[in-house]
Amino acid sequence: MKPILAVNYKAYYPHSFGRYAVELAQAALRVRRDYDLEVILIPPLTELTRILDIVRGSDIKVYAQHVDPLEPGAITGFIPVEGLKETGVHGVMLNHSEHRLKLADIHYLIQKARRYNLEVLACADAPETGAAVAVLEPHIVAVEPPELIGTGVSVSKAKPEVITNSVDLIRRVNKDVKILTGAGISTGEDVYMAIKLGTVGVLVASAIVKAKDPYAVMKEMAQNSIRAIEE
Amino acid sequence: MKPILAVNYKAYYPHSFGRYAVELAQAALRVRRDYDLEVILIPPLTELTRILDIVRGSDIKVYAQHVDPLEPGAITGFIPVEGLKETGVHGVMLNHSEHRLKLADIHYLIQKARRYNLEVLACADAPETGAAVAVLEPHIVAVEPPELIGTGVSVSKAKPEVITNSVDLIRRVNKDVKILTGAGISTGEDVYMAIKLGTVGVLVASAIVKAKDPYAVMKEMAQNSIRAIEE
Amino acid sequence: MKPILAVNYKAYYPHSFGRYAVELAQAALRVRRDYDLEVILIPPLTELTRILDIVRGSDIKVYAQHVDPLEPGAITGFIPVEGLKETGVHGVMLNHSEHRLKLADIHYLIQKARRYNLEVLACADAPETGAAVAVLEPHIVAVEPPELIGTGVSVSKAKPEVITNSVDLIRRVNKDVKILTGAGISTGEDVYMAIKLGTVGVLVASAIVKAKDPYAVMKEMAQNSIRAIEE
Amino acid sequence: MKPILAVNYKAYYPHSFGRYAVELAQAALRVRRDYDLEVILIPPLTELTRILDIVRGSDIKVYAQHVDPLEPGAITGFIPVEGLKETGVHGVMLNHSEHRLKLADIHYLIQKARRYNLEVLACADAPETGAAVAVLEPHIVAVEPPELIGTGVSVSKAKPEVITNSVDLIRRVNKDVKILTGAGISTGEDVYMAIKLGTVGVLVASAIVKAKDPYAVMKEMAQNSIRAIEE
Repeated sequence: MKPILAVNYKAYYPHSFGRYAVELAQAALRVRRDYDLEVILIPPLTELTRILDIVRGSDIKVYAQHVDPLEPGAITGFIPVEGLKETGVHGVMLNHSEHRLKLADIHYLIQKARRYNLEVLACADAPETGAAVAVLEPHIVAVEPPELIGTGVSVSKAKPEVITNSVDLIRRVNKDVKILTGAGISTGEDVYMAIKLGTVGVLVASAIVKAKDPYAVMKEMAQNSIRAIEE
Repeated sequence: MKPILAVNYKAYYPHSFGRYAVELAQAALRVRRDYDLEVILIPPLTELTRILDIVRGSDIKVYAQHVDPLEPGAITGFIPVEGLKETGVHGVMLNHSEHRLKLADIHYLIQKARRYNLEVLACADAPETGAAVAVLEPHIVAVEPPELIGTGVSVSKAKPEVITNSVDLIRRVNKDVKILTGAGISTGEDVYMAIKLGTVGVLVASAIVKAKDPYAVMKEMAQNSIRAIEE
Repeated sequence: MKPILAVNYKAYYPHSFGRYAVELAQAALRVRRDYDLEVILIPPLTELTRILDIVRGSDIKVYAQHVDPLEPGAITGFIPVEGLKETGVHGVMLNHSEHRLKLADIHYLIQKARRYNLEVLACADAPETGAAVAVLEPHIVAVEPPELIGTGVSVSKAKPEVITNSVDLIRRVNKDVKILTGAGISTGEDVYMAIKLGTVGVLVASAIVKAKDPYAVMKEMAQNSIRAIEE
Repeated sequence: MKPILAVNYKAYYPHSFGRYAVELAQAALRVRRDYDLEVILIPPLTELTRILDIVRGSDIKVYAQHVDPLEPGAITGFIPVEGLKETGVHGVMLNHSEHRLKLADIHYLIQKARRYNLEVLACADAPETGAAVAVLEPHIVAVEPPELIGTGVSVSKAKPEVITNSVDLIRRVNKDVKILTGAGISTGEDVYMAIKLGTVGVLVASAIVKAKDPYAVMKEMAQNSIRAIEE
């Protein structure tokens, strides 16, 4: 199985928007050209069409950072799954620690995204909630202890048991879901350990998005993830 | 003063998205070419860049349907004012009845939008809340009784006193803000009356967005608004 | 195992408040005196101390309808677990369809309630979300399809497969949690079927709270639940 | 006009609950017996009936910290105005910085509270939002800059212009509403200045609720408020 590198743009300013958003996607294209891994870019809603234009023709996937648990119609300032699908995205991230969802809405959105052939990356803040969300059958689960998000201290170093517990609890309820490691992932070594501890890749944000040279960071992560898979 | 025709796309499916969204903007361009009024298009967040591309070169304005009351940074699935500004939009609608905001957030967003040279269309559900929001100095206030939204029964016919009360209460606290009539506006006659009752134009959604021929509806509204202003 | 009759007072007016709330607790006391079942009363937050005074000395349990996922301190208009514990309640209901919670907050609250020796009745809207919540180890799970809540059409008649699927999915992930049936439960026959389909009792609201004679309804439900258990 | 001392219990643990909540009310009774001021106690929802029992027979008022903008009925874990009224409280605080409300809900709740003869203390975070909320005609407005809440640095010392601006902007739109000063009020001197700057009293929390001797703090505030009024 190919390792996964998922990049959450978040809403850094100016890094996540406009030409910076575009340059990050271009750097991802170069990394993907040189390394055999699955790349998922997760830009802000307002940047989706721009980023989709850039990665067209490659197998890089673009996910939305969120989608609203509402039916289309007389709703204002919300994006239902139907509207998101129209942009051409490949999937959607749900329940990030910075955008937690109600349990019933996670269920509703996973079912609906599947109906519209959108992949779902569901986040959780702990092994137990990772297992709870895995019961609902998203395509990917990422477990991110919120206290490490954005710290530069990676979960794979500071709390490796969170990763192994997550894999253990999630596999009891779901044999197939892909599992990602997140929170504080900053270096190729963090990525290497995340894969060695039993997950298929990483969910990264600031270490790439706010980097002076995002290409260099992604390249190092790509190399290490492939090394970890092959060993 | 030119009359204002503001079109809230909402999130109708498929009308508000993809090629339908584009066609609506093209129809608006034709109306604007023939009639001297101010046109504001308010598409879903994911359609903003597409619609901006289409109206470029005209004086049609594009507003977002909402913006999040958050600072940029480690936030996921939200669009701060800074990120919205990067799209190139001219303004933002706030506090629509389908996306009501906390009072403190309306204040925060109006101040911040002004700092970024974005216009603000603030909605309210009654004359009293229209006056409350007018204290905070948005560029435009639209008063829309929610029980009439989407009914096809216009406030200008069913509850003309809501419009006159709104104008009266708002003018006591703010001499300059532009005032729009909304809720159930469906015909040119509704627009004519809205202006005759003291407002400068209308906020319309389904009557245009879900129309078989949006151009025809907008054209009739444009004609009537100009007639009302000139008489 | 004793059958469980859990009564959600909701916020009917005047039925759920003041002397009506008191009379309902007194009727429950009479039922409990005559029938060997577990009774859980779930009144509004403002009525908790009044109802606790009435059932004192019996083994009727009083649960709150909700508790806020916040730490105590500088918070206004919210009740943290610590504050709820001070009232003397025995437990708390979480994630009712009329008060859905974020997944991470359900996890936080179940852990914290256990630390304060409060029982947790976690609700879910479908078999899948029932299983997801069961992963988090509450004491009781109630599955209530929201489309049947308050209809008087019981889930045990209209959708018995929801009950059997719930039992099936929940037991795969949690062997011990007690399972209740909810939504539309109106008669003793509904209760009988709920138990025969594999759950240990029911979560009822309007059929008891808004009844002309709540005692008569509870008595009939008690009789049928004991009959179902004993058969 | 009598000066007002409003005490927001918040949800400190254990100070705001159980016997601590009771002792604070008893201390307030002693202060009221000795000083001619209006005392408003604002305990957590679960403590309302206990506190009301204690102050019965005095003219101390008890307000709720919040009430939910919902109609009574099939709602769970929320308290509508009707249910709050049943407790016997005299009023309700709305829109505290720790429990901000949507503008439309503030309007709905003020109208409904008036219909049920409940007084409304509406909070705001700035002079402008204080004026906006004053348009909606609550009985009392308290302006509290959130950055000073709980700091022990009083707004009357750190930002006296917030108070004078608030009085100025509020009086332009509402001649009658009582105005309170809040945020960081810790000493009798803070209270004295708040009244000298044009407001009728203060909204205080931690300085009283978490004090070793709440009676002593309230007594000093009472003395200074009377001195300020009489001078």
